Amino acid sequence: MVSLTPQEVDEFVAAQYPAVRGFRCDAIGEGFATARWLHDPEQLRPGGLISGPTQFAAADLALWFLSFTLLGLAPMAVTSDLHIVFLRPASGGDLLARAELLRAGKSRISGRVLAWVDGAPDRPVSHATGAYARLA
Amino acid sequence: MVSLTPQEVDEFVAAQYPAVRGFRCDAIGEGFATARWLHDPEQLRPGGLISGPTQFAAADLALWFLSFTLLGLAPMAVTSDLHIVFLRPASGGDLLARAELLRAGKSRISGRVLAWVDGAPDRPVSHATGAYARLA
Amino acid sequence: MVSLTPQEVDEFVAAQYPAVRGFRCDAIGEGFATARWLHDPEQLRPGGLISGPTQFAAADLALWFLSFTLLGLAPMAVTSDLHIVFLRPASGGDLLARAELLRAGKSRISGRVLAWVDGAPDRPVSHATGAYARLA
Amino acid sequence: MVSLTPQEVDEFVAAQYPAVRGFRCDAIGEGFATARWLHDPEQLRPGGLISGPTQFAAADLALWFLSFTLLGLAPMAVTSDLHIVFLRPASGGDLLARAELLRAGKSRISGRVLAWVDGAPDRPVSHATGAYARLA
Repeated sequence: MVSLTPQEVDEFVAAQYPAVRGFRCDAIGEGFATARWLHDPEQLRPGGLISGPTQFAAADLALWFLSFTLLGLAPMAVTSDLHIVFLRPASGGDLLARAELLRAGKSRISGRVLAWVDGAPDRPVSHATGAYARLA
Repeated sequence: MVSLTPQEVDEFVAAQYPAVRGFRCDAIGEGFATARWLHDPEQLRPGGLISGPTQFAAADLALWFLSFTLLGLAPMAVTSDLHIVFLRPASGGDLLARAELLRAGKSRISGRVLAWVDGAPDRPVSHATGAYARLA
Repeated sequence: MVSLTPQEVDEFVAAQYPAVRGFRCDAIGEGFATARWLHDPEQLRPGGLISGPTQFAAADLALWFLSFTLLGLAPMAVTSDLHIVFLRPASGGDLLARAELLRAGKSRISGRVLAWVDGAPDRPVSHATGAYARLA
Repeated sequence: MVSLTPQEVDEFVAAQYPAVRGFRCDAIGEGFATARWLHDPEQLRPGGLISGPTQFAAADLALWFLSFTLLGLAPMAVTSDLHIVFLRPASGGDLLARAELLRAGKSRISGRVLAWVDGAPDRPVSHATGAYARLA
C-alpha cells in the first residue's frame, strides 16, 4: 500500500498527462480513490446534463488513481475494460466518482465506481465496474 | 428505417450538441453507423496513444447515430449502459468506431461497436456493447 | 415496497420454476436480497471449484428476488443483461450472492451483486452488475 | 494455432469435467468455436424458455473451447469476466453459441459470442463478450 495525497496525484497527472483536463483527485486512501470533475458549462449536453463520456472519464480516472495506491505514482497499469450503467440524469454541479477496490490480482486490479453529483451522494448517477491491467 | 446521410447527422449534432467536438459521422445505413474521431495530438496520452475516454466517446456516438436510423434525427434515446474492452494500443491516426444493430426492442436499442485506427480495420483496438434507452 | 420472507420466495420458486434447483432465498428486505447455492459436490469443477455458471445463476437469482421486493411475488421481470467479474477461486461451501438495488426505473431494475463462500464474506469471489426489464 | 475436432473437445470435457452436462462442441476452427446446448425440457423455464443461466453456460463454454484453439486441449485458462445481453426470448430447440476471437493477448483471451436457437441464426437471442485469463 502506497500512501498518497490528492495533491500529489494532481501534480503527477498535470506533469505527465496534460491532456487530462478538468479533473482532480478528491480523496485517496487504502482501498479507495475519488475523482472530481469540475463543473464546466461548455461540456454539458442540452438540458444541462453531464455527458456519458464525462462520467466514463471520471470512473476510469478514479480506477487509475486507485491503481496508484497499489503500484505507486507511475503509469504502471492501463484500462483493460470498463462497464458503466447510467442510473439517472446527472446535472447541477461537480461530478464525484469513488472507486473501491474489489481485487488486486497479479495481472489485474478490479474495482467498482459509484458516481454522483456533488451534494447528492445518495442519488448515484452511474455505477461502473472496471479493471486495470498491470504493465509487465 | 430512416434514411440519412453522414452530412445530415453532422449538421444535426453541430446544431444541437455543440459540446460534441472532434467527431464526425463517417457512414450510416440500415443496421449500422460509423463515427470518426479526428486525430488531435492535444488529446493524446503519452506515447501518442488514443485514450480510453476518447474510444468510449466514439463508441457511444456510433450507437447514438445508429439510434437515428431507427428513431429519426432527434434526441429520442439516451445511453443506458456501455461495456468496452480494450484490445490493443491505439495510435497513429483517426479512430473509426462502427456500430452494428443487435436488437431494436420496444424500450432499448442494443448494438455492438468495433473500433480501429484508420487504415488498420483488421486490428481492432476496442470492442463495445451498449444500449440506448428510448425516451417515452 | 413489498414485504416478503425467504420462505415465501422459496415456495413461489418451487411451485412456479421447478427447473431452478439447488438454490434458496437466504435473506430479503428493502433494497436487497440474498440467494444461497447449496453446496453440491456433483456440480463442482476439478479442484473442487464452484463454476462460473453456478455463480452467474446465483447472481441472476439474487437480482430476481430483488425484483420481487419491488414488483411482488410474480414473474413480472426478466433478465436484460448481466456482467460478472470473477475475483478469486471459489470453493469449500455454499455460495452466497447478495444483490443490492442501484436503481428502480420505470422499465428497468438495476442492481449489483457480491458473492462469497459461506463463512468468508470478506473474500468476495465474484461481483456482478445486472438489470431486469419489467414486463409491460 | 491448435487443430482440433469437435469430437476431441467433447471427449476431453467428458473425461475431465463430468459436471459439464448437456453441452457439445458443434464446430471449432481458427478464431472460432461453437457450443451446442442439447434441448432438455426439464431445464426450461415457464413458457418453454431457455434460461439465462443456460445461455451464460453456453457462451462461457464456447469461449473455453476457443481457448483450446490457442492453448491446446488442457485447462490452461479460466473465465475472467463475462457480459451477456439478452436480445429476445429463446425457445424451441437446441441453443447454439458461436464464439469469435477478438484478441489473444499475453494474459487474456477475449472473444464475443452470439447465440441463437438452432434453425434461426438470423434471430440472435443473446450476445456476450468475455475473457479467459491464462493460467501461468
